[in-house]
Amino acid sequence: MSHNHPIIADLNWRYATKKFNPELKISAENIEIIKESLRLTPSSFGLQPLKFLFIETPELREKLKEKAFHQTQIIDASHLIVLCVNKKIDYNYVDQHIENTATTRGHEVSSLLGFSNHVKNFIDNRDAEIISTWNSNQAYIALGQLLHTCANLRIDATPMEGFDPDAFDEILDLRKDNLQSVLVCPIGYRAEDDKYGQLKKVRKSLEDLFETR
Amino acid sequence: MSHNHPIIADLNWRYATKKFNPELKISAENIEIIKESLRLTPSSFGLQPLKFLFIETPELREKLKEKAFHQTQIIDASHLIVLCVNKKIDYNYVDQHIENTATTRGHEVSSLLGFSNHVKNFIDNRDAEIISTWNSNQAYIALGQLLHTCANLRIDATPMEGFDPDAFDEILDLRKDNLQSVLVCPIGYRAEDDKYGQLKKVRKSLEDLFETR
Repeated sequence: MSHNHPIIADLNWRYATKKFNPELKISAENIEIIKESLRLTPSSFGLQPLKFLFIETPELREKLKEKAFHQTQIIDASHLIVLCVNKKIDYNYVDQHIENTATTRGHEVSSLLGFSNHVKNFIDNRDAEIISTWNSNQAYIALGQLLHTCANLRIDATPMEGFDPDAFDEILDLRKDNLQSVLVCPIGYRAEDDKYGQLKKVRKSLEDLFETR
Repeated sequence: MSHNHPIIADLNWRYATKKFNPELKISAENIEIIKESLRLTPSSFGLQPLKFLFIETPELREKLKEKAFHQTQIIDASHLIVLCVNKKIDYNYVDQHIENTATTRGHEVSSLLGFSNHVKNFIDNRDAEIISTWNSNQAYIALGQLLHTCANLRIDATPMEGFDPDAFDEILDLRKDNLQSVLVCPIGYRAEDDKYGQLKKVRKSLEDLFETR
């Protein structure tokens, strides 16, 4: 039975945690796994227009909480990740990716010219807002991967869209680095008395979600 | 060492497959796990504005391939998933979610009135395009989860943004059902001679991707 598969057990275990136990901290080893999992997240053309900020400073967390509907997870979770993306991608950015590809794979940069031109052409044909949305989409792939990894490690998480991204960008001074905040994800360990952890998961039926053609 | 963790081995094993072995089919049991994994994917407010089409008909796959830069994975993969989202969300849609929540958890619908109003208010305050992008974002979370699940099962996948969504919507007659295609993901087993499977993975360094504040 597929429902007994460990993946399904992992995904049934997870829920959007409302209350963390502030005493419990994620181990350095698990943080390393989470970071490597985020690093390996696929992205369009492999461009990784991503930056993951781990916010530790209590004063900073307090300021961010005020701009995230005062959700206490921002403060109480072991670690707070702000998923950011590049606002724009220019030729220089693409060139760096090409150089990284060449170095990693031991190729000549010149052998990647076709790919480089393809990506630059893709960017040229799209306006700033489309590129910004496209970059943001990559952060959502990373979120999907992050939640899956955390569930496997039995680490709780609260994926959040409910915050003021402009205020976050201001507080974290992201604009000067061509970055913008897209998602927030506190991670840690659920409080035993978080009643949301006991609720049955609500999902559409297989019949509603899937169709074979 | 985190890099020896099975999750990291899974994620290092995966790559965007360029060439599938058309002879190899995913088992019914693994398809069941993949579907359940997609069903359990988190979404904003739990609304799941998603529909996953599994395309089996060869003629349909051929037509879709023509609108996806003739990428052969569309034909050769064991299974072809088109990730679709609802174009819009109306009060009726929200009411159905509330009813499902009440039924699943044994609550009275009336006890969920605050949540229902909150979601309806959220929708009222956003124009159609914002809602459509928001729905699409949820498909990207599902993609992240899908790729992670496939890697764990040692099933290959090719996440694709490179297709003509309008043509797909037309071919699959999605508009009448308030749906639009957002992502395409052929899944199956790599061909042994897919040279892309041998290439080293290109990723940014930990220093480039992460920052602690």
